[in-house]
Amino acid sequence: MAVWKGLLHAYRDWLPINERTPLLSLCEGNTPLIPAPNLSAQLGVEIFLKFEGLNPTGSFKDRGMVLAVAKAAEEGSSTVICASTGNTSASAAAYAARLGLRSIVLIPDGKIAYGKLAQAMMYGAEIVPVQGNFDQALELVRDVSRAHPVTLVNSVNPYRIEGQKTAAFEVCEQLGSAPDYLALPVGNAGNITAYYKGFREYHKAGIVQSVPRMLGFEAEGAAAIVRGEPIKEPETIATAIRIGNPASWDSAVRAAQESGGAIDSVTDEEILAAYKLLARAEGVFCEPASAASLAGVIKSRAAGQLLSGARVVCVLTGNGLKDSDVALQVNALELKSIPATQEAVVQTILQTN
Amino acid sequence: MAVWKGLLHAYRDWLPINERTPLLSLCEGNTPLIPAPNLSAQLGVEIFLKFEGLNPTGSFKDRGMVLAVAKAAEEGSSTVICASTGNTSASAAAYAARLGLRSIVLIPDGKIAYGKLAQAMMYGAEIVPVQGNFDQALELVRDVSRAHPVTLVNSVNPYRIEGQKTAAFEVCEQLGSAPDYLALPVGNAGNITAYYKGFREYHKAGIVQSVPRMLGFEAEGAAAIVRGEPIKEPETIATAIRIGNPASWDSAVRAAQESGGAIDSVTDEEILAAYKLLARAEGVFCEPASAASLAGVIKSRAAGQLLSGARVVCVLTGNGLKDSDVALQVNALELKSIPATQEAVVQTILQTN
Repeated sequence: MAVWKGLLHAYRDWLPINERTPLLSLCEGNTPLIPAPNLSAQLGVEIFLKFEGLNPTGSFKDRGMVLAVAKAAEEGSSTVICASTGNTSASAAAYAARLGLRSIVLIPDGKIAYGKLAQAMMYGAEIVPVQGNFDQALELVRDVSRAHPVTLVNSVNPYRIEGQKTAAFEVCEQLGSAPDYLALPVGNAGNITAYYKGFREYHKAGIVQSVPRMLGFEAEGAAAIVRGEPIKEPETIATAIRIGNPASWDSAVRAAQESGGAIDSVTDEEILAAYKLLARAEGVFCEPASAASLAGVIKSRAAGQLLSGARVVCVLTGNGLKDSDVALQVNALELKSIPATQEAVVQTILQTN
Repeated sequence: MAVWKGLLHAYRDWLPINERTPLLSLCEGNTPLIPAPNLSAQLGVEIFLKFEGLNPTGSFKDRGMVLAVAKAAEEGSSTVICASTGNTSASAAAYAARLGLRSIVLIPDGKIAYGKLAQAMMYGAEIVPVQGNFDQALELVRDVSRAHPVTLVNSVNPYRIEGQKTAAFEVCEQLGSAPDYLALPVGNAGNITAYYKGFREYHKAGIVQSVPRMLGFEAEGAAAIVRGEPIKEPETIATAIRIGNPASWDSAVRAAQESGGAIDSVTDEEILAAYKLLARAEGVFCEPASAASLAGVIKSRAAGQLLSGARVVCVLTGNGLKDSDVALQVNALELKSIPATQEAVVQTILQTN
């Protein structure tokens, strides 16, 4: 068993790291690429699941955040700040805690889902609700970080994409080559940008002989890129990609076009079907948004757009444990109790078979 | 980056595997051993965190379950059964799904916490509430599995401990030797038994030159071994170790005695303090029960029982995302909203500093 020390150690030569950069680590990265034999048989392509939910805070955000927070410390900052109600805030808070930095998280006031914030609060994040919507919160953290010595770690921080590109490196190493297709959910579009960057770097260095076709999938209710215009009130059950005006819009389109891939959308129904299928067919429990990758592959395959037998990596961006509310919803059922006798148990087993 | 294919591949020679055993895998194991520099400085011992929450279903149970379910399939079983309301059921259901087996989970009727069952239901487990308590449910699955062709995967299944011992192998490989102390939570006492077995096997094979002192920590309200008698109504916030009559009682005592370690207890307050400390000092979010290991180390160190500078591995058995209710409880606070202006944000940041 090889000892894994985290991304800044493993990919030091590929990242903007110098001798003053603290080699911050929660042993992020090195996430499994799980073969999906049952889905592969169903779909006629060879499917692998890059399960990013097994990063330290439960999502792919750790890849970019470890670098962003390390660089903040290198630059002498004692505080990181972001606007987020989800995975970004948790990741920022964890790495800040590790380095003894403060983390401040602005959230829109109003219907606050504390459950989503519990993780960030555990890591010691200071949560500040502002009387406005998410866009206003984001504008505020930008303004404050420009005028004061606090470091913005939202996705406009350029180190985020640098760190996230390491996932492409890992996929290449795990497969022994680049896959034919790389499918992933598209929300803010930073991740498709980062993967494409990573694949191109490995290709340019001669480590792999090709770059995969990039397939990005937005949720239909938040499909700004597919529709070609920002969406004021994006709506989807896949909260992690409920974004109406992606920050990395242009680079996402470029990644899809240059690679011969596409950006398409999937409905909430298709996302939830894929979400259940991943757990029931392969034993992998991801966030609803993560399942957009498989939902998109199923849709593309049905439309005859994927080569039979092709090697397809579906990126699962977050851990299903992050959003057990949705898991409960899709499994809502009345359980009928039975007497505590062997006969009753056996009969129930036979009945439901 | 080395490619990790899961425990049955990696430790094939150390496990009861033959050519008919399916090499089932969700890429379990290979969990990080995270150095804890901040805690180490505070406590004067060198602390490492074996973060088992990054297993595929979020707990150490995957190590034993992958083998138990593979052996069930090898033996021709088409159904696995267990009594569980937590990590065991999730793990059993995931691996059963992967191999196309049915998984049946008996739970005590009554106050059913669906949140805890959501994960198992996602993987397709069939949940059967029985009109009785947990002990009766456990007795029923034992009886049914004896009389019918379904395989019991509760902790009495001997393959569970065999699989779990691989965590000790990993710790040795990650450290380059055995640690001086191995601290872990004790509930059913299977895990301390398994770690000790793993360390002894590596020691016997000459891979490591010593076996660590085993330090097991029960929750005070469920401290059957410490008190020397079963506890009828065990109570602790650390639900994963709320067990009043540990199945592996004798072997746990033997592990502690033979290794020169101990089994002690920690209070819920000590557990919660350690739970928060892990997140805030090191950025690691574990289940409340997991924190019993660090709580115990802090207690032992205060009592002068641990050698200064010793290398101590604390096993964190499960992911904090499994129990976000407790995370919310310990962080319960009223958040006061502020106006959406730069001035208000800056003032808040300065105030709370």
